[in-house]
Amino acid sequence: MVESKKTASYTLVISCPDKVGIVAAVSRFVADRGGSLTESNHHTDVEQGWFFMRNVISASSLSVSLDDFRREFAPLAEDHGMHWVLRNNSELQRVVLLASHASHCLADILHRWKSGDLACQIPCVISNHENLRSMVEWHGIPFHYVPVPKEEKSGAFRQMSEIIERHRAETVVLARYMQIIPPQICEAYAGRLINIHHSFLPSFVGANPYLRAYERGVKLIGATCHYVTQDLDEGPIIEQDVIRVNHSCDKDDLVRLGRDVEQSVLSRGLRYHLEDRVIVRGNKTVVFTS
Amino acid sequence: MVESKKTASYTLVISCPDKVGIVAAVSRFVADRGGSLTESNHHTDVEQGWFFMRNVISASSLSVSLDDFRREFAPLAEDHGMHWVLRNNSELQRVVLLASHASHCLADILHRWKSGDLACQIPCVISNHENLRSMVEWHGIPFHYVPVPKEEKSGAFRQMSEIIERHRAETVVLARYMQIIPPQICEAYAGRLINIHHSFLPSFVGANPYLRAYERGVKLIGATCHYVTQDLDEGPIIEQDVIRVNHSCDKDDLVRLGRDVEQSVLSRGLRYHLEDRVIVRGNKTVVFTS
Amino acid sequence: MVESKKTASYTLVISCPDKVGIVAAVSRFVADRGGSLTESNHHTDVEQGWFFMRNVISASSLSVSLDDFRREFAPLAEDHGMHWVLRNNSELQRVVLLASHASHCLADILHRWKSGDLACQIPCVISNHENLRSMVEWHGIPFHYVPVPKEEKSGAFRQMSEIIERHRAETVVLARYMQIIPPQICEAYAGRLINIHHSFLPSFVGANPYLRAYERGVKLIGATCHYVTQDLDEGPIIEQDVIRVNHSCDKDDLVRLGRDVEQSVLSRGLRYHLEDRVIVRGNKTVVFTS
Amino acid sequence: MVESKKTASYTLVISCPDKVGIVAAVSRFVADRGGSLTESNHHTDVEQGWFFMRNVISASSLSVSLDDFRREFAPLAEDHGMHWVLRNNSELQRVVLLASHASHCLADILHRWKSGDLACQIPCVISNHENLRSMVEWHGIPFHYVPVPKEEKSGAFRQMSEIIERHRAETVVLARYMQIIPPQICEAYAGRLINIHHSFLPSFVGANPYLRAYERGVKLIGATCHYVTQDLDEGPIIEQDVIRVNHSCDKDDLVRLGRDVEQSVLSRGLRYHLEDRVIVRGNKTVVFTS
Repeated sequence: MVESKKTASYTLVISCPDKVGIVAAVSRFVADRGGSLTESNHHTDVEQGWFFMRNVISASSLSVSLDDFRREFAPLAEDHGMHWVLRNNSELQRVVLLASHASHCLADILHRWKSGDLACQIPCVISNHENLRSMVEWHGIPFHYVPVPKEEKSGAFRQMSEIIERHRAETVVLARYMQIIPPQICEAYAGRLINIHHSFLPSFVGANPYLRAYERGVKLIGATCHYVTQDLDEGPIIEQDVIRVNHSCDKDDLVRLGRDVEQSVLSRGLRYHLEDRVIVRGNKTVVFTS
Repeated sequence: MVESKKTASYTLVISCPDKVGIVAAVSRFVADRGGSLTESNHHTDVEQGWFFMRNVISASSLSVSLDDFRREFAPLAEDHGMHWVLRNNSELQRVVLLASHASHCLADILHRWKSGDLACQIPCVISNHENLRSMVEWHGIPFHYVPVPKEEKSGAFRQMSEIIERHRAETVVLARYMQIIPPQICEAYAGRLINIHHSFLPSFVGANPYLRAYERGVKLIGATCHYVTQDLDEGPIIEQDVIRVNHSCDKDDLVRLGRDVEQSVLSRGLRYHLEDRVIVRGNKTVVFTS
Repeated sequence: MVESKKTASYTLVISCPDKVGIVAAVSRFVADRGGSLTESNHHTDVEQGWFFMRNVISASSLSVSLDDFRREFAPLAEDHGMHWVLRNNSELQRVVLLASHASHCLADILHRWKSGDLACQIPCVISNHENLRSMVEWHGIPFHYVPVPKEEKSGAFRQMSEIIERHRAETVVLARYMQIIPPQICEAYAGRLINIHHSFLPSFVGANPYLRAYERGVKLIGATCHYVTQDLDEGPIIEQDVIRVNHSCDKDDLVRLGRDVEQSVLSRGLRYHLEDRVIVRGNKTVVFTS
Repeated sequence: MVESKKTASYTLVISCPDKVGIVAAVSRFVADRGGSLTESNHHTDVEQGWFFMRNVISASSLSVSLDDFRREFAPLAEDHGMHWVLRNNSELQRVVLLASHASHCLADILHRWKSGDLACQIPCVISNHENLRSMVEWHGIPFHYVPVPKEEKSGAFRQMSEIIERHRAETVVLARYMQIIPPQICEAYAGRLINIHHSFLPSFVGANPYLRAYERGVKLIGATCHYVTQDLDEGPIIEQDVIRVNHSCDKDDLVRLGRDVEQSVLSRGLRYHLEDRVIVRGNKTVVFTS
């Protein structure tokens, strides 16, 4: 993997009840330790009275260690009732990919990873089909074949869970993995389990969205990257996009054109997640894209 | 109104069961009468076995009158079981606009009409509010105020129907007219009654789409121009588009941003309709945009 | 004009050399006076070492008057070498519009203003043609006809300058005003003189961009909203957008399709400017769109 | 490679001086041989008096062989002064890919080819760098390393030409191949040599378009797929697209975001070319996208 050329940095992500002075308090805390902000975004949800913040701090500018920063920041965070994460961006997240038969989303993610465009580790790929093994292994990534029999799926999902845990996955991506994920996995990876749905949600929740889009005669088709919850296709949306279609497109054309949107929406959504740009609150997300 | 600079032309629109030789037969018929095609599109829905065609014929090139063309074409049309329309594009369609309180779609259509960008006649505007009267009348167009009382709407719709008929409307446009149209009007103007719905259908069918889009946390909002049928928001879609939104948009922002999409989608859809680019079949449309 | 429903607020815009602690200092200053931030963006141009910030402060939350805030903030600003503006958003900016013969951009801005969508005052419209007088006057806005004779333009521009000054314009918008603005006006209104160019700059700088786009066979046409400088079409870009075209579009079609992009790009650019979202530095802009 | 599921078909592409009756003559000819049209587009460039047509004919519907069709069509074609091509879509075109160091466009094309999404043969890849060898060879495609020394390039291009000819390439694609192609290769493959330029042409012709886009402060960056001619970046444009950027994007971000546009524009342009949807006339193209 190509080394990231960005300088070492930490990302501090905060959400808490809104109050006058939070930005000042956090900024003061960082500045007092010499911290230079290379990116900084905040947002207040006025209706909910909730505050969201993301700061990227240049590592070399900080006069304290990450551990000291963390220890010293804790009381401030407690005072404000913060949910907070402080990540060392040099420690790449471990992302396990789940795939079925379709290759496009997986190939796209693997290429971005391989060319250094997507900063993460990929300890393994799990699939219920064998057809993508060679592609995955060519990238130097272990491939686990876990078939999911129609009649008895729980064993497969148990095996899958074990593999995911063994590889200490921090994030799990369903790269067109066409199985419904059991509740216990949804819960265990809440906010870290990312799916790409092949429609512009909430249009065409559930199976066969392209067929239903074709039958409805829509003039745009889309894709939705979202966190998986126990309610099928109802989780918090991270990213969406659409592409124009017309009467000359048959069902196969929609599937083909849709693939491009699926993979670009998934890779953008995954990038936002990995860069800690996404903060979930309730069933909605704040996404600091820039 | 500014005169259209386009040369005089006829538009011939056909749909019928598909069969080898239709294009040849129609093209031969036109060519035999000297007809020069300035635009021509056809499409075959292979699955349904149905054929769609639109030809624009330069009027000056034709060696026969429009009436003769029509009379001579009839047997050919009958042979192929064609639905067909032959329009003299110099005779502008009569379009009645229905509006409520919101001005943006109405103002956009009126400006396009006034500046010669939208080729039609607008015999009148009907509204259940008085606030847009002055704007309409400044354009030199009669304004009819037809209030729609909550408790008893049938009288209002009867009055509206009479006005529409008296003005011999060929097309009726709901330019953010917020009332549900009664079945008899939907039927009387089937395929000629155009609505703009303020969501990317089939997402958020029904009332308050922006509020529901806000609550669902979608990352794009849209608008849909469609023919009205008795099934609310379920009619054949003519045109759709979307615009990107994010967490910083509150409900008012969605409404504001949505207005721009609504008016551009409605004006595109209306233009396609007026130029006979739209052919309805079942609950879907063929739209020959170029 | 419809009253804005947004609560009273102040916008503080800052740009200065970057230094650790600026965000903390400004945020502290605001928080110490009770100021609640409803929007806040900052950006550091690492390469140039320059810092940009925009804060919207709820007026009712502030414990000091605007004048006191201004007086107390001055020393802090001076310490950091800040360029800064503090605007009371209840005092609407005075915007003078310049137009020629084409109506679409002017009609769009006037409608947005009239419907309360664009928060500004429009003390007058100046045009070198008479044809838009009635439309402007219907909106209740004075219309000044200042013809610009080909052979001797300086008198016209002197007259135009006087009208602009007499109306105490803070911003001047060229809404498809097709004359080249003389240097002294460019200078007098530097950073406050906004143009819409009918191409995706830097493609097709200068005259007849649609004709040249047609001849080059591009597949997208665009529009660019930018601040006017003495170098024709070279000023800082505020906003751009494009629309898809194809071989079936003749020159007139490009002009027609382009109008929609022009007016939406201009109205977005003008909104960003009026909301103090645009900060110019050198020949580039920072635009805090959300 | 996955087999295409589309039924066997022939594509007939025609361009010639416009005349009344051409559509009728061609359609009659096809219909008389039982030919069922699954796609059909035509376009008249009124200004140039030139006619363009593309028909896809279901092979099984034809009562004559392809050779007979060709022989019988020749006199008709001659009568009308047609340039014409009749392609058997079962015979996949031979496409040689040229790449340098960057992998994204190449990886995208190879994946589309491998998954059966792009119907062509790829007899080899030629590169002036070794780094993509393994990726290419994993796809089962021969990789030729042809270094291009700065001081003496003619030998390299001679060698490249020989490889291209030996593999009987019908189309050559510059998949971010960063060398200027010598005139004799441009001529030999006129209309069959496809490049992806990393800007929205005619903006930023030549070297370093992202750097120049960054310096100019544009709000959208783009990519252009075009046929290569001897005039650098001036050849007929097949396809273009853009993506939104803002002040927070540094030069590296533009390069990264641009990659996605480059690969999607190139793959769309290449698809149009392979499906004979593109007809060049002068320095412009007709592209029948649907």
